[in-house]
Amino acid sequence: MATNKIKIIAVIGGRDPSEEEVNLAEKVGREIARQNAILICGGLTGVMKAACKGAQSQGGITIGILPGNDASTANPYVQIPIVTNLGYARNIIVVKSAQAVIAVGGGYGTLTEIGYALDAKIPVIGLKTWSLSRNHQIDRSIFRARTAKEAVRKALELSESK
Amino acid sequence: MATNKIKIIAVIGGRDPSEEEVNLAEKVGREIARQNAILICGGLTGVMKAACKGAQSQGGITIGILPGNDASTANPYVQIPIVTNLGYARNIIVVKSAQAVIAVGGGYGTLTEIGYALDAKIPVIGLKTWSLSRNHQIDRSIFRARTAKEAVRKALELSESK
Amino acid sequence: MATNKIKIIAVIGGRDPSEEEVNLAEKVGREIARQNAILICGGLTGVMKAACKGAQSQGGITIGILPGNDASTANPYVQIPIVTNLGYARNIIVVKSAQAVIAVGGGYGTLTEIGYALDAKIPVIGLKTWSLSRNHQIDRSIFRARTAKEAVRKALELSESK
Amino acid sequence: MATNKIKIIAVIGGRDPSEEEVNLAEKVGREIARQNAILICGGLTGVMKAACKGAQSQGGITIGILPGNDASTANPYVQIPIVTNLGYARNIIVVKSAQAVIAVGGGYGTLTEIGYALDAKIPVIGLKTWSLSRNHQIDRSIFRARTAKEAVRKALELSESK
Repeated sequence: MATNKIKIIAVIGGRDPSEEEVNLAEKVGREIARQNAILICGGLTGVMKAACKGAQSQGGITIGILPGNDASTANPYVQIPIVTNLGYARNIIVVKSAQAVIAVGGGYGTLTEIGYALDAKIPVIGLKTWSLSRNHQIDRSIFRARTAKEAVRKALELSESK
Repeated sequence: MATNKIKIIAVIGGRDPSEEEVNLAEKVGREIARQNAILICGGLTGVMKAACKGAQSQGGITIGILPGNDASTANPYVQIPIVTNLGYARNIIVVKSAQAVIAVGGGYGTLTEIGYALDAKIPVIGLKTWSLSRNHQIDRSIFRARTAKEAVRKALELSESK
Repeated sequence: MATNKIKIIAVIGGRDPSEEEVNLAEKVGREIARQNAILICGGLTGVMKAACKGAQSQGGITIGILPGNDASTANPYVQIPIVTNLGYARNIIVVKSAQAVIAVGGGYGTLTEIGYALDAKIPVIGLKTWSLSRNHQIDRSIFRARTAKEAVRKALELSESK
Repeated sequence: MATNKIKIIAVIGGRDPSEEEVNLAEKVGREIARQNAILICGGLTGVMKAACKGAQSQGGITIGILPGNDASTANPYVQIPIVTNLGYARNIIVVKSAQAVIAVGGGYGTLTEIGYALDAKIPVIGLKTWSLSRNHQIDRSIFRARTAKEAVRKALELSESK
């Protein structure tokens, strides 16, 4: 495994997603694995679990950066659990370890991850996620995708320069 | 000093603010000190420095949660430098240590702090800062203030329940 | 309060100290306050609580770097609770924020703090704490004190160069 | 890859090891890979690099928990770089993510990792590393091994109960 060249793509999103978001996340995970990239996420349930499930179904590698104190808190599709016990300060590790980030829906935790990624100039691809504006100016830094395939294709394309 | 009862208010915002934001931040700092609250911030320059300067001018206490490795990286108005060497993972400490958060302008780092605060149900008061929406629905969780005084008054009022 | 010049001294030690260690810690806290230094610690019980109690009895300022999610987890003598929610990763913040560290007894958590301090060349003064050796060579980096007064005097003296 | 069942073993040690320690670390890495365990480490040079080199030579998987801001800071034998930007606060992640820890030599950073592991009841196997005592009582929590093979065998054996 010459993974130094392998891409690592983060999938971020909430623990309580809609059915549509679950489906999207699973498709994103599948597509990441088909493209031979590693999936990294927060390791818990909801969008994270669906994405790991999708990736594992295609034989992909999944990493979970866990906020808690124990590998047993990972969802069953996490193959490599990283135990931080840092709480949500671990969010920055999820995005910093990736060459691109795909956000599926998401709550305020996902918002922190989007902020960390954009601050570090790591590309963010959004599927039904946050929109940002500041002083009545829309921030267009998040690339909007309409399908899971488009999101993964864009993530790999934008990560080339990283 | 019976500070267990003293309020701690966070001021967050960018390192490269507009002149208007600098003025607002300094006024916010002054008002926090006048209300006998402690000011906590990220300890660096820009909005953080202006807020500390304002607080110190009124005899207030200022705490800087520094991302770097050395107390000398604090702005000169930080009285109590906390050295984390955690980089921007320290953002969560700034907001978690406060009973309310005032955002003045701000970039993506400030966005992470807003996300952490809202996720932890710590009130956020905004002065010319980010607006959020998700799936075409505006998120109204940030309380909008028009003046520094209004922001601090609201911060103290909303922090009562914390 | 021109605290930029004020010394910050860390007191580290276990949550389940002997009676002798409790007495030592309280005396160390008292002496730190009498010397107009700020006391920083992990904010919890045992040695930390005794040291804060001592400092507060002399009108000193006490800071607690809390591992948990809530200021209410601080001992009652912590005046400025810093909420990290980082678990024991917060240990590095306790020592990095100080100009010298006084260890009173202590378990494995204290050992991590001693390691972090020595790695960063922050002086460590030991009162009944760990002894270290490597490959049959004793490591003499921890300065041994016999009394609380001697420990604080040495801490202030060694912190001059920081 | 059903890695949920795969063991993760941490190798810790300094950045400036003796030649003997380099040889030991490389042998430890080789043996970890031969036993089909994943190697986790701090991702930098010295003992960490030698261990990763050994593991990779046998087709093993290597994870580096990096203190810095960029995957490029990893040694060339790290296959999965995790970017924390947390400085040495990342030490706790290295040990918490493992079911057992092997220390080869090591300085004060390694001492913090030993402390974190013992505090969390994660077994520590020592090869020419720190010895600890407290109040004139030797602490025998570190299991002493004489060879790389013995260290890895013991690590796997002690990790069974985790």
